[in-house]
Amino acid sequence: MKLERMLVSLSLVAFMLYSVAFSQQEKSSLSLIPVPVRVALTSDTFKLAEDFTIAVTGKSYSRMYRGATRALRRLSERTGLFFPQDFITVESPGNTDTADFVITVERPGNVKLNEDESYRLDIREAKISLAAETDIGALRGLETLLQLLKADENGYYFPGVEINDTPRFPWRGLLMDVSRHYMPLEVIKRNLDGMAAVKLNVFHWHLTDDQGFRVECKTFPKLHELGSDGSYYTHEQIREIISYADNLGIRVVPEFDVPSHTTSWFVGYPELASAPGPYAIERYWGIKDPTMDPTKKNTYKFLEKFFKEMARLFPDEYMHIGGDENNGKQWNANEDIQKYMRKHNIPDNHALQSHFNLRISKILTKQGKKMVGWDEILQPDLPTTIVIQSWRGIKSLMEAAKQGYQGILSNGYYIDLIQPASFHYLNDPIPKDSILTDEQKKNILGGEATSWGELVSPETVDSRIWPRTAAIAERLWSPQSIDDLEDMYDRLEFISFRLEELGLTHRRNYPMMLRRLTNDTDISALKTLVDLLEPVKIYSRHFQGVTYTSYSPLTRVVDAARPESMTARRFGKLIDSLMADPEDALQVEIADMLKGWKNNHRELQKTVGISPILKEIESLSQDLMTVSEIGLQAGKYYTSRTKPSEMWIEQSLRLLENAKKPRGQTELMIVDAVEKLVRAVAALEN
Amino acid sequence: MKLERMLVSLSLVAFMLYSVAFSQQEKSSLSLIPVPVRVALTSDTFKLAEDFTIAVTGKSYSRMYRGATRALRRLSERTGLFFPQDFITVESPGNTDTADFVITVERPGNVKLNEDESYRLDIREAKISLAAETDIGALRGLETLLQLLKADENGYYFPGVEINDTPRFPWRGLLMDVSRHYMPLEVIKRNLDGMAAVKLNVFHWHLTDDQGFRVECKTFPKLHELGSDGSYYTHEQIREIISYADNLGIRVVPEFDVPSHTTSWFVGYPELASAPGPYAIERYWGIKDPTMDPTKKNTYKFLEKFFKEMARLFPDEYMHIGGDENNGKQWNANEDIQKYMRKHNIPDNHALQSHFNLRISKILTKQGKKMVGWDEILQPDLPTTIVIQSWRGIKSLMEAAKQGYQGILSNGYYIDLIQPASFHYLNDPIPKDSILTDEQKKNILGGEATSWGELVSPETVDSRIWPRTAAIAERLWSPQSIDDLEDMYDRLEFISFRLEELGLTHRRNYPMMLRRLTNDTDISALKTLVDLLEPVKIYSRHFQGVTYTSYSPLTRVVDAARPESMTARRFGKLIDSLMADPEDALQVEIADMLKGWKNNHRELQKTVGISPILKEIESLSQDLMTVSEIGLQAGKYYTSRTKPSEMWIEQSLRLLENAKKPRGQTELMIVDAVEKLVRAVAALEN
Repeated sequence: MKLERMLVSLSLVAFMLYSVAFSQQEKSSLSLIPVPVRVALTSDTFKLAEDFTIAVTGKSYSRMYRGATRALRRLSERTGLFFPQDFITVESPGNTDTADFVITVERPGNVKLNEDESYRLDIREAKISLAAETDIGALRGLETLLQLLKADENGYYFPGVEINDTPRFPWRGLLMDVSRHYMPLEVIKRNLDGMAAVKLNVFHWHLTDDQGFRVECKTFPKLHELGSDGSYYTHEQIREIISYADNLGIRVVPEFDVPSHTTSWFVGYPELASAPGPYAIERYWGIKDPTMDPTKKNTYKFLEKFFKEMARLFPDEYMHIGGDENNGKQWNANEDIQKYMRKHNIPDNHALQSHFNLRISKILTKQGKKMVGWDEILQPDLPTTIVIQSWRGIKSLMEAAKQGYQGILSNGYYIDLIQPASFHYLNDPIPKDSILTDEQKKNILGGEATSWGELVSPETVDSRIWPRTAAIAERLWSPQSIDDLEDMYDRLEFISFRLEELGLTHRRNYPMMLRRLTNDTDISALKTLVDLLEPVKIYSRHFQGVTYTSYSPLTRVVDAARPESMTARRFGKLIDSLMADPEDALQVEIADMLKGWKNNHRELQKTVGISPILKEIESLSQDLMTVSEIGLQAGKYYTSRTKPSEMWIEQSLRLLENAKKPRGQTELMIVDAVEKLVRAVAALEN
Repeated sequence: MKLERMLVSLSLVAFMLYSVAFSQQEKSSLSLIPVPVRVALTSDTFKLAEDFTIAVTGKSYSRMYRGATRALRRLSERTGLFFPQDFITVESPGNTDTADFVITVERPGNVKLNEDESYRLDIREAKISLAAETDIGALRGLETLLQLLKADENGYYFPGVEINDTPRFPWRGLLMDVSRHYMPLEVIKRNLDGMAAVKLNVFHWHLTDDQGFRVECKTFPKLHELGSDGSYYTHEQIREIISYADNLGIRVVPEFDVPSHTTSWFVGYPELASAPGPYAIERYWGIKDPTMDPTKKNTYKFLEKFFKEMARLFPDEYMHIGGDENNGKQWNANEDIQKYMRKHNIPDNHALQSHFNLRISKILTKQGKKMVGWDEILQPDLPTTIVIQSWRGIKSLMEAAKQGYQGILSNGYYIDLIQPASFHYLNDPIPKDSILTDEQKKNILGGEATSWGELVSPETVDSRIWPRTAAIAERLWSPQSIDDLEDMYDRLEFISFRLEELGLTHRRNYPMMLRRLTNDTDISALKTLVDLLEPVKIYSRHFQGVTYTSYSPLTRVVDAARPESMTARRFGKLIDSLMADPEDALQVEIADMLKGWKNNHRELQKTVGISPILKEIESLSQDLMTVSEIGLQAGKYYTSRTKPSEMWIEQSLRLLENAKKPRGQTELMIVDAVEKLVRAVAALEN
């Protein structure tokens, strides 16, 4: 068998070989995300049959057995095959001699920073082997295996392959903000499963903010009792999530944002604030004034007890203290604080916050925790054990690294800004042109995607996280050289499908939301339109005449619309292709799309008549008709190489400009491509 | 306004007036399910505007405030309107003078049997009023209101209406079996929400069985530790569900099935069994031998402590002890038990179990609980405070009622048997021809739909419960005279849509399951076929060459298929209409359907080629083509009044017979209708 094998080795630097050695089809057919460090395809195939069994050997915790059982179930559920094993456990770990798939681990892994996550996966005709130093590495390998399952008319199989894999960065995270909108446990769990599927390993749990204090505090119960509207996680629930994440090899890093972003704390404990209360839970978004008083002894007494309780509840060695966006207003207005600053020669609010950070840092150190904070906390007197999370820009991360501080990148990974996967994908924690020394580069631990919670509900949050976060996961795991956008998009679509089996709702909630919008009448016309819409980018959704609060409905067209319209993307690429080479088939395909869109408005109007919630996008639908008409005409001019009249050009460009205006806080994503075509025909010779 | 109002009163007995006074369209347009006792439509409409507010007045617990807030959110989410109120609480209950909607309750309700659930809902042009004796009644009224929301080109509104409503039966339940397949908390919660939406008020929680012991037991921890594969509910989680249900006005009645159905108990405590261990968690389905030893003192000591703990955990005054399906094998084989029976003159196993039941009854009484059991437990020496749940037939329920025992009906409400909604709908706990006296009728408390768990997963269970359970809910709430099947089916489709907003997955998981089956290629051909399939009925799925275990995949076509094919139902009705009156439009509609189905196989075959899991239904797809061809030909013969050849008739009937055979444990549901047509043309004169 060995002799027959066609072995193509792919080293980290020689990744391009991969693209050369295999056709595009073969390459995409592997569909691994993140791409492993080294992949060698063979001509073997392992047939998956009804008697398939798994054996686990070596030293492991229950984590490995559970992981193996879960993988077995997922394979069974995809294929409909009735495998004989029920649960793989330490008592019945399977028979390594007879099992089709043997997992060998050297030792149980520790769910902590820098743990070994490497694995080696070997698929041969008769047997699959997965070997890893730790069970965490083996879990990563299991996810790779699960992505490799294929089928043809003869049944299910795995392609023969030898994979050696290890992550580029040790800190690969997803932040979920459960303060702005509370997320039930199952939302957290399914997203943890999604994280594990793309080899992310840090769940950053943003638990407190102005709009909600989401963790039970036994020492100061008014924190959760008065600060959460009843929506908080009990200690048992926190432990449930930590245990769930641990089983997936995922760390849980909690964030308790101080001294600002703390209105919800002050509802129960106004004495902590820098201005007298009373306080109510904040319902609006944005940077708020309430800030802890860093000059009072009682503030630190309180925080010492608070962090002591939390340090025991959360086992990870890192704890996030936020530290961002203090506008200083309450400090400026407080005479006692001003007096304190003068007395202690504290020149400004930044210095005062540094003073506060240092105290908090000492409190955390006493509890055996290392501090993480947003880039505002970077200051020279903090110990270099802290980790800086950069949201304001990669520059501050580089600055920190130079000063010997470890850091993680989040700037560029703000998935709540509704930017395309390509944007995040090309954002590298250590850009190729980085001027950091190799030693300094080691301080860059990785990065985190951030799912801020202002405009997400349990119903929509998955669609704002997935599949785009898989692109970020690849950036943080795979070799830097892996950067082919087209290939990434192909694989993103595949993983988006596979993520559904973990309960993620990013795809299945879409038609449901459209049904609600149409009052359960035919959704097809609405879907045709919404397939081409995207929510407005960055934070502009807050500045279009709508004031969002924490209880505003998140069920409108803008919430149903996908962050990235794949149909519009495809249309744009077709236009580009047409302009590169106007072949007939392409013209027909484009014309067919445009004709469908042109005729859509009449159908959609019927629905708008019975569904007032759709009124806000009625003119967008009309514009889709207009834009499509222009596109059809421009296409004809283009293929006949006929220059249209100046009047037509002028009018068309004006209408297109008009169609770019957001409505219902959404944008029509095909206008740019049509405009490109119009400008091309405008440039034709007479 | 009053003078202008067209007021049509509908009393319980005069419901038919309703059908007379309003056109079919108007009637269906209300779409209330369950139908209230008395509905009076007016010509008023209440316009729902962005400044809509609610006020709660009278004496209530947090239940009412939460319920009102939840209703406000649901209205906001349907309409996209940004209402000004955040949370309605006892501190900010809204202003009764200015609010658009005022809820008045006399007193907080008790979530217990026979609590007042009546309400009066009055929608006028300027104001909506909801009045109820208890907050539980008001919650029922809120669900009615939420079903009344309508829209036209001018916006959202409620039709003017006066409703007086109260349930026919006080015990309206849904049993969920979480032993056979563990169901995560969110599955329970969303189904509780669904129950509340159709005014069910008892959640019967089947927590223990051979295949799993699903509740934490602090007294005997090996029960859940060894009996659950790690899938059980902690006390905190149980309390979370009880509190969630309480907020919806739903009782939680736990079932601990004894003395049989107890294998999972014996894994940790084999000494309870009537045969020596060791025992392992049961993985197969069916009636199993393991049964508690009713002759040992220790059994009762154990159960006394066990029920004491559970009695404290579950506040409802009723506790279910199962008592069903003891096959007596272990008792027959145990010499000590036989000796005991001889010594105490216990003639047979039934008498021995009666002896056991009596002991358990006393244990429960001591804990302040009333006993519920399946109809096997009916025996003369039990106190008449017990409740008999009839699964074997309505006869035993009637028998019990005559003997002075209270009872609830489940026979005929076994939704896991995959029967049509119409079947359950017409199943009445007190049939019109019942010979019970009025006094005896009072012993019939209501009924329960039973979602047994052998063949459901968290992914499919909602589709096996909804929407059919809404038909049962109506039977248990609405006046007996409400029994129009067509009207029920119309309203069922509407509630099925509305139930989605509660997170129920019966609709949105369907395309997801089809995507998995097609490996994310185009699902349309598969959907066309599966839309016409139903899983085989009763328990025949276990007897078609497939042995299901508790870990078998539930992701095949049979699991995706709906329990009741609405497309097949519609087709059958069209055929009936055609045979009543062969008008042209009908012929065209039928022919179009058949042509689509006839051409489906070619498309589906492509998918089967890449998706081996579909192989098992390939011949069904071929049969759909054959049946459709026959249908098309028969249609032509029918409309041309031409009798086909005997050979054609014979061959067609043979092919149709063949097409009735289940494959993949599913059946093609249009065959009977086509056969009807063939038999009709066969009966034509030459």
